[in-house]
Amino acid sequence: MKNHNFSAGPGILPQEVLQEAAQACIDFGGSGLSILEVSHRGKNIIAVFDEAVALVKKLLNLNDDFEVVFLQGGASLQFSMVPANFLGNGAAYLNTGVWAAKAIKEAKYYGKTEVVASSEDRNFAYIPKDYNIPSDADYFHFTSNNTIYGTQMMEFPESPVPLVCDMSSDIFSHSLDASKFSLIYAGAQKNMGPAGTTLVIIRKDFLEKQQRALPSMLNYKIHVDGESMFNTPPVFAVYVAMLTLRWLDKNGGIEWAEKRNKVKSELFYKELDRNSKFKGTVDIADRSQMNANFVMADGADEDLFKTMLKDAGISGLNGHRSVGGFRASMYNAMGLDSVQALVDVMKAFEQKQG
Amino acid sequence: MKNHNFSAGPGILPQEVLQEAAQACIDFGGSGLSILEVSHRGKNIIAVFDEAVALVKKLLNLNDDFEVVFLQGGASLQFSMVPANFLGNGAAYLNTGVWAAKAIKEAKYYGKTEVVASSEDRNFAYIPKDYNIPSDADYFHFTSNNTIYGTQMMEFPESPVPLVCDMSSDIFSHSLDASKFSLIYAGAQKNMGPAGTTLVIIRKDFLEKQQRALPSMLNYKIHVDGESMFNTPPVFAVYVAMLTLRWLDKNGGIEWAEKRNKVKSELFYKELDRNSKFKGTVDIADRSQMNANFVMADGADEDLFKTMLKDAGISGLNGHRSVGGFRASMYNAMGLDSVQALVDVMKAFEQKQG
Repeated sequence: MKNHNFSAGPGILPQEVLQEAAQACIDFGGSGLSILEVSHRGKNIIAVFDEAVALVKKLLNLNDDFEVVFLQGGASLQFSMVPANFLGNGAAYLNTGVWAAKAIKEAKYYGKTEVVASSEDRNFAYIPKDYNIPSDADYFHFTSNNTIYGTQMMEFPESPVPLVCDMSSDIFSHSLDASKFSLIYAGAQKNMGPAGTTLVIIRKDFLEKQQRALPSMLNYKIHVDGESMFNTPPVFAVYVAMLTLRWLDKNGGIEWAEKRNKVKSELFYKELDRNSKFKGTVDIADRSQMNANFVMADGADEDLFKTMLKDAGISGLNGHRSVGGFRASMYNAMGLDSVQALVDVMKAFEQKQG
Repeated sequence: MKNHNFSAGPGILPQEVLQEAAQACIDFGGSGLSILEVSHRGKNIIAVFDEAVALVKKLLNLNDDFEVVFLQGGASLQFSMVPANFLGNGAAYLNTGVWAAKAIKEAKYYGKTEVVASSEDRNFAYIPKDYNIPSDADYFHFTSNNTIYGTQMMEFPESPVPLVCDMSSDIFSHSLDASKFSLIYAGAQKNMGPAGTTLVIIRKDFLEKQQRALPSMLNYKIHVDGESMFNTPPVFAVYVAMLTLRWLDKNGGIEWAEKRNKVKSELFYKELDRNSKFKGTVDIADRSQMNANFVMADGADEDLFKTMLKDAGISGLNGHRSVGGFRASMYNAMGLDSVQALVDVMKAFEQKQG
């Protein structure tokens, strides 16, 4: 029976990438050695990093105004690195949930942090629309997709100041003008690879604004100058990210992913809206294509539904600890067949419940 | 032909660990899913972390006075985290080479840093012996094994202040009283696993001394409270580290490794001292069992030696970029047969050169 992996993150990866990753653990590129036990300074590993950077730039259509590095520490370390490097007079943040709030908390350590808008009043069930970004802010920070709630910004605000975005859970999932951003970061473990590395894309002219003396590991310039190898990088995580980007590129890049993600999410949401036994939890206009959150209708038998999911090979559908309910994460690597399998269970459940 | 992997780091791992790691990339523990694409909050992943922590404590004979966490960012991030958390009035450091010097540089960002002794006068070819550790220092920091030069401290100073040690390249390689240390850290990629995670062992009473407000990701307390999962951890790197520790434990633990490492290094150094075509570069008393540095005697044909190494399946023997020459890294996972293969080439080279 096929497994249908709806895990919110670390999330599903392409089968061919997993096969290739396994092979490299035994024999990397015919070298006779495992990728886990060779120097990161070897030509074959440097080639992996070069290809990963080139793929990021190709897929996002970025020119040489941008630097691309792979770091450690996840988005959580970026929550600190962004203000450590760029918060001088003050920064503006949009609060769309737990991860945005964590970024705000870390920014406050470094200086004045203004929250321009928040959707906390309705437990982050929507994306705030009307707000002003102060023109004297050092940057405006927001989270493009909120995995915990299932909301997503598919379009981005016009901003008088540099845009900084946490794209951890929807990077490479739909087309966008990445060149509008001064800094994009993304933990790999949703659309791009396994846990253990973080992609950072940064405009060169924004990088020049970094002035503060900093511990080396928090300094973007040092990582850029070291081409992701200021210190020993997480080689395997970057390798698997590279394979995943290669897979995406081969299949048609972000345009291909965008079409597929649209079809998948429409299939799911159509059933959610039709089915009397389930209810969505966020405003329809702000629904995420990556993470669809829902709860059961009153009186529906949650245990039965969970048993039916398990019997159908569906896993990872639990909601985040902080909100409960269910969450169907449908990242790039998920095929339409998995969403169909879930929809089939939802239909069968409704029939059983009568 | 067998590969003999003398890489200084990331370094050699046990073959059975690599096989198991590859298998987990396809199907982790019969779950039907890859370890690369499942939630770190799953019971089976939490079990991996629990076992890794238990193995560290068992192998190092540590009681519950100690906390064990697996972090990201390598020893390089520890260079900052140690002073960020514990440097108040001032800290004492021993300078035994590039890595120690990097730790000193980062400490200076946080406060007064006294270098109690340095072996820089002879390019770090020895370990300083006579120095005083000021009794008012917050801690004394040193590097137990210096991979770049091939020096190692097998015994440790009596200290009036808490001992903090970077054991990245010789942890688990010989027996020691780990309970004497207030904090030990080690990048995994030498004796313990692949690049991408860092082991930190910290005494609970030392942890209580942390007072400074810090970015969350630099705060040991937050990582300890989160049991290595304050944020998404590098699951695969920790898994492979756990497998490597399990392999070590199964074979007889540190006592077994210690005997094996002694035999290996004695075999190598005996040949180095006998062979007229090679010279060691560090004081005999301070030679490392992990990394043996050497250069060619005047007039010996380096290209011929390199060709002979290659023909014998020996790789990773180049010295660090900063010192040149050769370096034979003989970490725990290396068998005596690989050292014998190297010794055989050295003998054959001497005969050819006449």
